[in-house]
Amino acid sequence: MANLVFDESSSNRESSHGYAWWFSGNAFAKAADEDMRPAAHTFVQRMVTRPGRLTVLYFLVLVVVATTLLMLPPSTPPDETTTFSTALFTAVSALSTCGISIVNSTTHWTLFGQAVLLVSVQMGGLGVMTFASLITLAINHHMKAAQRLLTATELGTTKLSEIKGVLGVVLTVSFMIEAITFVALFPGLLKVNSGDWRKSLWESLFFAVMSYNNAGFTPDNAGLHVNSWGVGLPIMMSAFCGTLGFPVLLNLIRCGRAHQPPRRWSLHTKITLMGTFLIVALSLAWFLIVEWDNPFLFKKADVNTRMRYAMVAAVMPRSSGFDLTWVPQVSEPTKVFMSAIMFIGGGSTSTAGGIRVTTFAIILLVCRASFTGHADINAFHRRIHTQVAMAAVSITSTCLLLVFISSLSLMLASGATLTNALFDSCSAFGLGGYTVGVAREDNPAALAILAVTMIIGRLGPMTIAYSISRPRSLEAVRYPSETVVVG
Amino acid sequence: MANLVFDESSSNRESSHGYAWWFSGNAFAKAADEDMRPAAHTFVQRMVTRPGRLTVLYFLVLVVVATTLLMLPPSTPPDETTTFSTALFTAVSALSTCGISIVNSTTHWTLFGQAVLLVSVQMGGLGVMTFASLITLAINHHMKAAQRLLTATELGTTKLSEIKGVLGVVLTVSFMIEAITFVALFPGLLKVNSGDWRKSLWESLFFAVMSYNNAGFTPDNAGLHVNSWGVGLPIMMSAFCGTLGFPVLLNLIRCGRAHQPPRRWSLHTKITLMGTFLIVALSLAWFLIVEWDNPFLFKKADVNTRMRYAMVAAVMPRSSGFDLTWVPQVSEPTKVFMSAIMFIGGGSTSTAGGIRVTTFAIILLVCRASFTGHADINAFHRRIHTQVAMAAVSITSTCLLLVFISSLSLMLASGATLTNALFDSCSAFGLGGYTVGVAREDNPAALAILAVTMIIGRLGPMTIAYSISRPRSLEAVRYPSETVVVG
Ligand SMILES: [K+]
Ligand SMILES: [K+]
Repeated sequence: MANLVFDESSSNRESSHGYAWWFSGNAFAKAADEDMRPAAHTFVQRMVTRPGRLTVLYFLVLVVVATTLLMLPPSTPPDETTTFSTALFTAVSALSTCGISIVNSTTHWTLFGQAVLLVSVQMGGLGVMTFASLITLAINHHMKAAQRLLTATELGTTKLSEIKGVLGVVLTVSFMIEAITFVALFPGLLKVNSGDWRKSLWESLFFAVMSYNNAGFTPDNAGLHVNSWGVGLPIMMSAFCGTLGFPVLLNLIRCGRAHQPPRRWSLHTKITLMGTFLIVALSLAWFLIVEWDNPFLFKKADVNTRMRYAMVAAVMPRSSGFDLTWVPQVSEPTKVFMSAIMFIGGGSTSTAGGIRVTTFAIILLVCRASFTGHADINAFHRRIHTQVAMAAVSITSTCLLLVFISSLSLMLASGATLTNALFDSCSAFGLGGYTVGVAREDNPAALAILAVTMIIGRLGPMTIAYSISRPRSLEAVRYPSETVVVG
Repeated sequence: MANLVFDESSSNRESSHGYAWWFSGNAFAKAADEDMRPAAHTFVQRMVTRPGRLTVLYFLVLVVVATTLLMLPPSTPPDETTTFSTALFTAVSALSTCGISIVNSTTHWTLFGQAVLLVSVQMGGLGVMTFASLITLAINHHMKAAQRLLTATELGTTKLSEIKGVLGVVLTVSFMIEAITFVALFPGLLKVNSGDWRKSLWESLFFAVMSYNNAGFTPDNAGLHVNSWGVGLPIMMSAFCGTLGFPVLLNLIRCGRAHQPPRRWSLHTKITLMGTFLIVALSLAWFLIVEWDNPFLFKKADVNTRMRYAMVAAVMPRSSGFDLTWVPQVSEPTKVFMSAIMFIGGGSTSTAGGIRVTTFAIILLVCRASFTGHADINAFHRRIHTQVAMAAVSITSTCLLLVFISSLSLMLASGATLTNALFDSCSAFGLGGYTVGVAREDNPAALAILAVTMIIGRLGPMTIAYSISRPRSLEAVRYPSETVVVG
C-alpha cells in the first residue's frame, strides 16, 4: 500500500507508464520488469489485451462452477432440494454481488453451501473490481491514443505488468477493509450471540465479505441486527466504502496522507462524493417525510427506531441490500423512489451496480451546460471531455431501455404490478439485492429475466464504456451534415 | 400554397432569406418588402425577436380568457356547475391540445361551451404550430450565426416578415387539411345521425378541428364511431397528418409535385416517417399480441372488431386521444407500453406532444454511433450536428425527470398505482389525452399537477431546444480537462 498513489492530474502530468493515469508509484515497477523478459504466455497476453472478453469469460466459468457446487448434495440439508433454476439464480446473484435471495440463506444452505456463496461473492467482487480497473486503464489508453494519434501497435494494449499491479492494489485494499470490518464486527456479534465465539467468528467473516462486496446475503435469520449499533455500524461503513470505487478510495488515502485539502481531490472523487452525499441526503429526507407514519413499518415505534430505519434506508438501498425484511412494507411511492436510487447505483469500478453516480452526474451537467448556454461541460473548475459525456448518454439510454423492457417482461411473465416489476428490475440491474416478491422460486421465467438483468447490470455499463472508448477507425466517408428539428 | 416549397438542402444551398432553411419561394417576398418601410411597431418587433417569451405570453393570455369564458353561465347548462379548477383544467387541456376531459363534454357544456373548446383548441393548435416554426427558424439563425461568427446585430433576429410568412403557411395548410377532413366526414356523420344535417355539420366541424389539432374532445356521447369507417378513417388520417409537423408536410408536398423519389426527401422527413412507421407497427403488433384475448375489452368480439381496435390503438395514442371509453380496460403492461409511446409523441412543430419522434431517433442514433465506434452521428448518408444531439439529450433527460417527478407526485397526491400515475403523467406530458382515472374533478391537487405537466409538455421541449441553440457567449475561462470514470 505504501507505494500506491493515485495520480489525479492526468492532463498535467505525463508518465511513461500506461497505467499512470490512475495509479502511479513504484509498486508496479517490479512487475513491469517481468515484461522485459521474453514471455511465453501468448494466450494470457492475448486475453489481457481484451479486458472485455476476459471479463465475460471469467464470469461465465464462475457461474458454471458455482451452480454445480450449489447443486451438489453437501450444499443443501437432507430435507431440502435445490432445483437447477434456484442454483443458477443464486449463483448469478452471488457472483454479480447482487444478493437477491429466493430461498432462506440460513435454512436452505448448509455451512458448505454458505461457504460457496461466500467464495462466490468474494470472487465476483474481486473480479469486477479488477476488470473494471483494467477496463478503465484501457479506456485511458484509447483516449490518449486518440488524442495523440499513436501508431497502431501502441493502441489500447494492456500489459501483463498492469494486470498484476491492478490485482495487487485490488487485493490489498479489499482484504484490508474486510479485515478491519471483521475485527470491528466480532465484539458486537459476540455480544449478540451470547458469547458463542465459533458462530461469531463465522458470522463476522460472512458479514465482512458480504458488506464490502455489497452482496446482501445474511448468515442467520436475525438479518442485519439493526438494533445493535455494534453490528450495524461496521457493516454500514464497510458497505459505504465498497460503493465508492477504487479511484476514490486511493485518491482519498493519498490526499489524507499528504495532508492535502479537499479542493486538491481529483475531479472523479469530487463528483462521486458530492453525488453520493446528495443521493444519501435525499433518500434520508424522503424516508423521514414519506414513511414516518407508515403503520406497516412502525407499529408504535419510538423516534430512535424510526431514525435508525431511515438511516439504513438512506445508505443501504444504493447497492448493499441487507435487511430485507421490511422492504415490501414500504409505500408504493417509496418503492418507485428506491427504484430510481438503485438504478443510479454506486461509484465506478466498485462492487456497486447501477449506471453509476458519475454517469448520472454527467447527464445532469450536460443539461446544465445546455441550459446555461455553455459549450463546455464544466464541474469544479475542470472540463469534461465530450467523449465521456457521450459515453454517459449511451450508458444511461441503453440501461433505461433495458430496465423498461425487463419490467414489462416481468409484468407479462408474473402478472406483477408495474411498481413491483420496476422495483425488482432496478434491484437486479442496480445490484440492489432487495425484492418485493416478483423473484419467486416457482416462477422460472421471472427468475430468468432477473438473472439476465443482473448479468447485464454487472457487466453492461463498464462494457459499454469500454466499447465506446475503442480506438475509432477513421470515417471512410464523411457525409454532409443536415439539420433535424428536435423538441 | 403554390409558392411554398420546402428547402431541404440547408447545407448545400444558401439563401439571403433568413427563413430559407425550411421555407423557400416567393410567398414571403411581399411580406419582406414591408420590412423595408420604417416600422413604428417597436414593441411587436421586440417580442418577435424573442419567440420563447412571445409563446409563453400567448398561452398565458389565452388560458385566462378561456377559463373566464368557461366559467360564464352560458357555458354550462342550468343544472350543472363549473368549478374554477374544472374550468382552468379544461382550458389548459384544450389550449395545449391535450384533450384530457374530466367532465362529460356533451352533457357538461352547452353549445356555447363546446364552441369555446373548439376555438381554444384551434387557437392552441395554430399557436403552437406557428411558434414552433418561428423557434425552429430562430434556432437555425443561431446555428448559422455560430458557424459563421456573425456580428452581434445579426444574431438570432427574426423579422416581422418571417412571422407573417410562417403564419400564412400554417393557416393555409391547417385550414386546407381541416376543410378536407370536414368534407370527408360529413357523409359518414349524416348517415350515423340519421339525416340530421344540422347536427352533422356541427359534429363534422368539431371532429375536423379536434382531429387535425390532435385534441381528443368528442361532440357527442358516441365517441369516435369506431364501427363506422366513414367517420373513423378521415379522423385517423387527419390526426396522423397533424402529428407529422410542417417540415415533413411541406417537404412531402413539394417532392410529390416535383415527382421526386423518396430518397430525395429531407433528412428530417426521412427520420420522422421512419420513426413514426416503426412506432405504429410496434404498437399494432403489441396490441394484437398482448390484448388479443382481453375479456374486458372484447366480449366475444369478432376478428374484424379486434383489428379495428388494434389499428385505432396503434395510431391514436401517440397524440390524438380520441375514443376514451376502452382505455382503462387494457391490461397493466399495455398501459405501461402506451405510456412510453405517448412519452415519445409525434413530429416536431406539430400539434402532437412528447419529446418528439426525431428526438428519440437521435438518442438511438447516438447510441448506435457510440457502439459501432463512429465519431460521426450518421443517418441516411447524412451527418447530424453534435449540437442537435446535445439538444436531444437535454430534452430527453429533462422530460424523463419531469414525468418521473410528476408520477411520484400523483401517487402521493391521489394514492394511484404507479401504472396509472405514469399513464396519466405521460398522457399529460405527451398530450395524449387519455386518462385512466387519476385526473378527477374532486382531486384539485392531481388536476394541478397534471395541468402543470400539460403546460410543460406543450412548451417545454421546444423551449429547451430554443434555449440550447442560443448564441453562446464565448467562455470567459476554459478550464483544463480531467477524465471521469463512467459506467
Ligand atoms: K447488492
Ligand atoms: K391529444
